[in-house]
Amino acid sequence: MAAEQTSRTIEAYPMKGGDGVHSYANNSSYQGRVNNTAKRLITEAVVEILDIENFASSNTFRIADLGCSVGPNTFFAVQNIIEAVQFKYQCQGLDSQLPEFQVLFSDHTSNDFNTLFSSLPLDRKYYAAGVPGSFYGRLFPIGSLHFVHSSYTNHWLSRVPNPVVDKSSPAWNKGRIHYTSAKDEVIKAYEAQYIEDMEYFLHARAQEVVRGGLVALIVSGRPNGIHHSQTTQNIIFDLLGSCLMDMAKRRIVSEEEVDSFNMPLYYMSPHELEAAVDRNGYFSIERMEDLPPIQEIITSTIPKSQRIASHLRATLDGLIKTHFGDAILDELFDSLSKKIEEGMPMLISGGSVNFFALLRRKAMD
Amino acid sequence: MAAEQTSRTIEAYPMKGGDGVHSYANNSSYQGRVNNTAKRLITEAVVEILDIENFASSNTFRIADLGCSVGPNTFFAVQNIIEAVQFKYQCQGLDSQLPEFQVLFSDHTSNDFNTLFSSLPLDRKYYAAGVPGSFYGRLFPIGSLHFVHSSYTNHWLSRVPNPVVDKSSPAWNKGRIHYTSAKDEVIKAYEAQYIEDMEYFLHARAQEVVRGGLVALIVSGRPNGIHHSQTTQNIIFDLLGSCLMDMAKRRIVSEEEVDSFNMPLYYMSPHELEAAVDRNGYFSIERMEDLPPIQEIITSTIPKSQRIASHLRATLDGLIKTHFGDAILDELFDSLSKKIEEGMPMLISGGSVNFFALLRRKAMD
Repeated sequence: MAAEQTSRTIEAYPMKGGDGVHSYANNSSYQGRVNNTAKRLITEAVVEILDIENFASSNTFRIADLGCSVGPNTFFAVQNIIEAVQFKYQCQGLDSQLPEFQVLFSDHTSNDFNTLFSSLPLDRKYYAAGVPGSFYGRLFPIGSLHFVHSSYTNHWLSRVPNPVVDKSSPAWNKGRIHYTSAKDEVIKAYEAQYIEDMEYFLHARAQEVVRGGLVALIVSGRPNGIHHSQTTQNIIFDLLGSCLMDMAKRRIVSEEEVDSFNMPLYYMSPHELEAAVDRNGYFSIERMEDLPPIQEIITSTIPKSQRIASHLRATLDGLIKTHFGDAILDELFDSLSKKIEEGMPMLISGGSVNFFALLRRKAMD
Repeated sequence: MAAEQTSRTIEAYPMKGGDGVHSYANNSSYQGRVNNTAKRLITEAVVEILDIENFASSNTFRIADLGCSVGPNTFFAVQNIIEAVQFKYQCQGLDSQLPEFQVLFSDHTSNDFNTLFSSLPLDRKYYAAGVPGSFYGRLFPIGSLHFVHSSYTNHWLSRVPNPVVDKSSPAWNKGRIHYTSAKDEVIKAYEAQYIEDMEYFLHARAQEVVRGGLVALIVSGRPNGIHHSQTTQNIIFDLLGSCLMDMAKRRIVSEEEVDSFNMPLYYMSPHELEAAVDRNGYFSIERMEDLPPIQEIITSTIPKSQRIASHLRATLDGLIKTHFGDAILDELFDSLSKKIEEGMPMLISGGSVNFFALLRRKAMD
């Protein structure tokens, strides 16, 4: 219920809406390719793991996409799930019991739902709904979902951990914007926030998903055994932090503004997710595997460093604007693009992994 | 399914979004007062007619508000329904079985859902979702709704009847924008469109609403036995038409533009709605009564004629802009305000009624 959602402070930094040059819709082809590599795994999940006889009495099969944003990726993902479920009904000779489908597209309240709704496929074979709110709280009625899909979302924390912006705390993260190569206290504060958030996430889903229902997560994470400072995404955020510190030296922003700015992002490892699922207790882990690295399809002459910067801009737009205002965006991402260019060898040596986790709601209250 | 929705051309003219001076959110206090007079009837409907034992096995009580628009009215209406249902459970000693509530706010895809979502009450005791699409087609899965509420929406036709804009038809409505005092063929074309639309509306709801579920309609209509030309709303539209013809004479718009413009609005009588429900066959009529006239609460010094014109502007903004463009709006509604001022005695003598209809889904396939 809403009360439950608002009992914790949850911050929302939506992807950039609309369809402009810096929009998420036009800068999310990477996530699209990640989903594509996960497509086979989702199909297998439905065909091999989903126990449709459990749901045969229900007229409606409900799918939630959490963190749907506005782009086309979300439509491809749910379309794939629906086709797999239809295939399974047909294979089991249950054509006559084929349910209707309802897809609940969910994201923060500040997500651009107007753009999402106006781009819904006209030939869709499902009833569509939008659900505003944070997935770190309850979003749906009890036992109402059969399949939850969430791609590239769980690295967003519900908030910046309190201690890292508290000057009196040993975890105060002065001069940095992330935990990449920060002191241990900062890393621990981020880890603690991740653990708390993931428990809220799993607890809410445990109530919303029917017994036997599936939760498929595509996670932007860090490989098991790799230190945070060696993670590709984190290295990029260190570069972004140093761009901001450069701007502070040139008095374009104040040093205090940089000190008080931290990114609410945490890149979990598969082991960390396993531990969270075990602690929660309501789900079994049916699959957990790394996705193959994404082969970049170069369709433009724009240099790689600039493409990475553009992609990051679409993702971080709201976050940075809220703290620093609009005016610095162009310069900030231009200089980030240059730093990425220089730091490319370091980036290439960094570790990074997208992994797929399939959870199944256990048959217990 | 979507296919069903798109098999007919359905036009969408959303209320004016945002929260500006001409917005619907700031010009819909009249509808709010209408809902208020219907509040008691809705409460009675739940307490006296709703058979909650039917639904006791279901964990979730689903309410749809059709034509929710963006304003606060929709939140008050669903809050009232929820309180009445909770009261009924308590009275029957079923506290322990109290369901969770999910409210599905629905309107055309072009409705401003972003504004709607950001104004959702923070202390709401229900899960909220937005559902884009026309209520003249299916919007929800089969048997998934327990209570449908729709206020001030069913006078919007799905489209302008074809014959009235067809030069070769005897129903061509030259020099007019509505059927108010038009020739019989025009009136018949509008009636036929109403009959077709209402059948689509009831057919879709018959599939979506569970057996025993309720549909509460608050209808802006015309009293039984009153001719269309004597209906207050229609008289106002005749004035609006004459404003446009004046502008055509002054070459601000072309006469052809006015000829090809018709308002997709039809004011049904209670008898006409009864006939539609009978033809459809899936619902019993549990209540049908006129709402008391709205007592105007004068909180501003703005003359009545201007208030009527402002209210109409918020409602018709999209419709008129789509056809004539932005530029004429200020002048058009200024001159309408003057014509309303002059025509006030005629308006006061006109007939108009808001009525309440409560339908109950029969226990049949």
